[in-house]
Amino acid sequence: MSEEKYDLVILGGGTAGYVSAIRASQLGKKVALVENNLLGGTCLHKGCIPTKALLKSAEVMDTVKRSSEFGVDVDNFKLNFENIQQRKNDIVNQMHGGVNHLMDHNKIDVFNGTGRILGPSIFSPQSGTISVEYEDGESDLIPNSNVLICTGSEPISLPFLPFNNSTILSSSDILALEQLPDTLAIIGGGVIGLEFASLMNDFGVEVNVIEAGERILPTESKNIANTLKSELTTKGVKFHENTQLTEENVTVENDAVTFDIEDMQLTVDKVLVSIGRKPRTEDIGLNNTKIKTTDKGHIIVNEHQQTDDKHIYAAGDCIGKLQLAHVGSKEGMIAVEHMSDQQPLPLDYNKMPRCIYTQPEVASIGLNIDEAKQQGYKARAFKVPFKAIGKAVIEDTNNQNGFCEIVIDQNEDSVLGLNMIGPHVTELINEVSLLQFMDGSTLELGLTTHAHPSLSEVLMELGLKVENRSIHV
Amino acid sequence: MSEEKYDLVILGGGTAGYVSAIRASQLGKKVALVENNLLGGTCLHKGCIPTKALLKSAEVMDTVKRSSEFGVDVDNFKLNFENIQQRKNDIVNQMHGGVNHLMDHNKIDVFNGTGRILGPSIFSPQSGTISVEYEDGESDLIPNSNVLICTGSEPISLPFLPFNNSTILSSSDILALEQLPDTLAIIGGGVIGLEFASLMNDFGVEVNVIEAGERILPTESKNIANTLKSELTTKGVKFHENTQLTEENVTVENDAVTFDIEDMQLTVDKVLVSIGRKPRTEDIGLNNTKIKTTDKGHIIVNEHQQTDDKHIYAAGDCIGKLQLAHVGSKEGMIAVEHMSDQQPLPLDYNKMPRCIYTQPEVASIGLNIDEAKQQGYKARAFKVPFKAIGKAVIEDTNNQNGFCEIVIDQNEDSVLGLNMIGPHVTELINEVSLLQFMDGSTLELGLTTHAHPSLSEVLMELGLKVENRSIHV
Repeated sequence: MSEEKYDLVILGGGTAGYVSAIRASQLGKKVALVENNLLGGTCLHKGCIPTKALLKSAEVMDTVKRSSEFGVDVDNFKLNFENIQQRKNDIVNQMHGGVNHLMDHNKIDVFNGTGRILGPSIFSPQSGTISVEYEDGESDLIPNSNVLICTGSEPISLPFLPFNNSTILSSSDILALEQLPDTLAIIGGGVIGLEFASLMNDFGVEVNVIEAGERILPTESKNIANTLKSELTTKGVKFHENTQLTEENVTVENDAVTFDIEDMQLTVDKVLVSIGRKPRTEDIGLNNTKIKTTDKGHIIVNEHQQTDDKHIYAAGDCIGKLQLAHVGSKEGMIAVEHMSDQQPLPLDYNKMPRCIYTQPEVASIGLNIDEAKQQGYKARAFKVPFKAIGKAVIEDTNNQNGFCEIVIDQNEDSVLGLNMIGPHVTELINEVSLLQFMDGSTLELGLTTHAHPSLSEVLMELGLKVENRSIHV
Repeated sequence: MSEEKYDLVILGGGTAGYVSAIRASQLGKKVALVENNLLGGTCLHKGCIPTKALLKSAEVMDTVKRSSEFGVDVDNFKLNFENIQQRKNDIVNQMHGGVNHLMDHNKIDVFNGTGRILGPSIFSPQSGTISVEYEDGESDLIPNSNVLICTGSEPISLPFLPFNNSTILSSSDILALEQLPDTLAIIGGGVIGLEFASLMNDFGVEVNVIEAGERILPTESKNIANTLKSELTTKGVKFHENTQLTEENVTVENDAVTFDIEDMQLTVDKVLVSIGRKPRTEDIGLNNTKIKTTDKGHIIVNEHQQTDDKHIYAAGDCIGKLQLAHVGSKEGMIAVEHMSDQQPLPLDYNKMPRCIYTQPEVASIGLNIDEAKQQGYKARAFKVPFKAIGKAVIEDTNNQNGFCEIVIDQNEDSVLGLNMIGPHVTELINEVSLLQFMDGSTLELGLTTHAHPSLSEVLMELGLKVENRSIHV
């Protein structure tokens, strides 16, 4: 047993975990962080950051390919995948160093082992003491007042196509490829699948996306999904929607996988299975607590992030709300502030920005028009195309299909959601996040002076359009 | 005399003019717009838009040059200046078509001639009737209830270096070059001079910037000016500050100009004189009115944009406040709304975004720390470097000198200003503009969920830093 009692032990050093640890330290808590892998978790090592590093190289590749459109003639160009991977690793390493430094700087004790929650014992009348097992077989017990579970999630595999890190890859495996495949099938047309479809296509890989549902991107509006599909199709990605896979129509060989779909045979070098993620909640000792989970294993919490064991909180992917790094951090901070007797505002998931870093980019907040109507709102949508915005024309004269759509509750005159596809929308969405957090109106958005020329003028025009006074549309 | 009386005649079809015309039409006014050149004015034809089109090509050139850093190897590349100019012209033409369409769509009568204000006459007891002279010698008189003057500004020349459209160029002339010079001297290290320094340097031109004052960018903070100078110097631009030019130290020959400065001789092919702009208010009939102007010729208006002839308003560069397209539009809309008995909010110039589209970009709102202290505020500055932000590292691992600085009034706990230099800050500033328009606090900025990873996270961290609770710095 560790001699010290901690105010808070956090299980998992991913984004939700390490950010919460810093916030707890700011609030004067003595904090332990237990992580059996690298600090920074999925986001830093197997998710957002390495993917976006590859996407940046893909963007440069695309710029070089198209540079003559901008008046720069290039004779020959070649992708150097080793250097692309090296750059990605350098970025991850730099940021990993940063996170380690933040832990020191905030005086957070990091335990590099596997943490599990123990039940009540003679030493501790309530559940929650954390046992840590190290690789060398040693172990520790960490008594505490509060626990925050941030154990995250991991890729789901298909039962008939288990990950083998050779032909059948998870999103983690594909980030570590040493060579690009010639052909790639992506099973699952959600956010992760489409980001890889976009970047691998830019890298010159022949990409087929196989989606079981009736359309890609079921979480975004039909308009957005159709536009993205059409843009990626133009760039060379092939889509197979409404395509169910079973043991019968997939053949895995040593160095190839063949799909019998849509009356055709598709043989590829590699397959990325990106059909979703499952919470890492199986082997962390939940059976020793009163904590309840959903059918899918997500930990059930209240609006303060408390589990049914009130002194144990949970945040991030393991609770299965919006599985996004910035949402996980917020949930964790709310947990920490609540256990510190602050009064944090509960999270409004309808006001959280969601981004897809494909080319073109997609970004959204809240509801799209179909969702709003399904939920019974008297909803109305207004749309402004990027081609009405000077800076968008300057950015790309040959690709002006992007747009921005806002969904309004006509009864309350409030913003229910906003959806965008086009240049740099993953930045533009943050202004909308501020508007929503401050309960701003479309008129306030429209009357705010936006720099000219800037892409964000699309938001100003949209705000004015709702008020029937847009200038450029 | 035109048979119809107009509610409003607008002199000048630049950004302030045409936007105000649309707003007036929305408010039910019968509007005439008088323009002796192309609709869209300086911004569209000789300013923002063509410059940003060239800057986009410069950005692509820079990306191609540096593409191996991102894992894309390029053998040979060459600038095709003819195509760059063609692309720029295509963009301007597309947007010019858009403005013409907007005039039709909003039923605005455009008079393509030179407008002047007439004094009181037997037909009209008050000044303000507009005479229009056409190129063919014909003319019109347009009676009206209100006039809005949006005649804009034009480049100032140096008495001993008059523009000759051969070696001594204005910012308008340089946009029309058919060939790139080998060497260029830029007189004046303000916004326009530095944008051309940045893009011409990216295009491979040898650039020298000559600034009479003690430093470039006197309107921005020392920190920002120093960082920009250092970044541009690294890329190859040479700066000569504290360098006064006179007839004695400049020699103009047929195809070269020589400067004797700093104990050296500098001979260049072309010179851009970008020392400021003067209002176009000389020959528009102000002598027929009670309108007063400043020493520099700027029209004096009150907070409703009214001149001393209350039915005549003025907006944009000709009033000489912040000479920015988006500010001109706002001033014009305020004028139009005021004459329509609306109650528009007067413009707060301290809340207007200002952008410099160099690489790296610069963007600001309100005061910098020195200005705030000079004005007697109990001011404090907080700074977050872009290198603490994951997306900035991804964007450019080799250039992480950018930062974002906020200036706070410690007495009122309000935001006095914000200054940024770094990637895409000309977009990021618009979120700050919304915050300022809504009188938001640094805590609201910091608590707003920002998408991860995004560059805008720098604003969130900055907001939190003021509150002593930033996570990543």
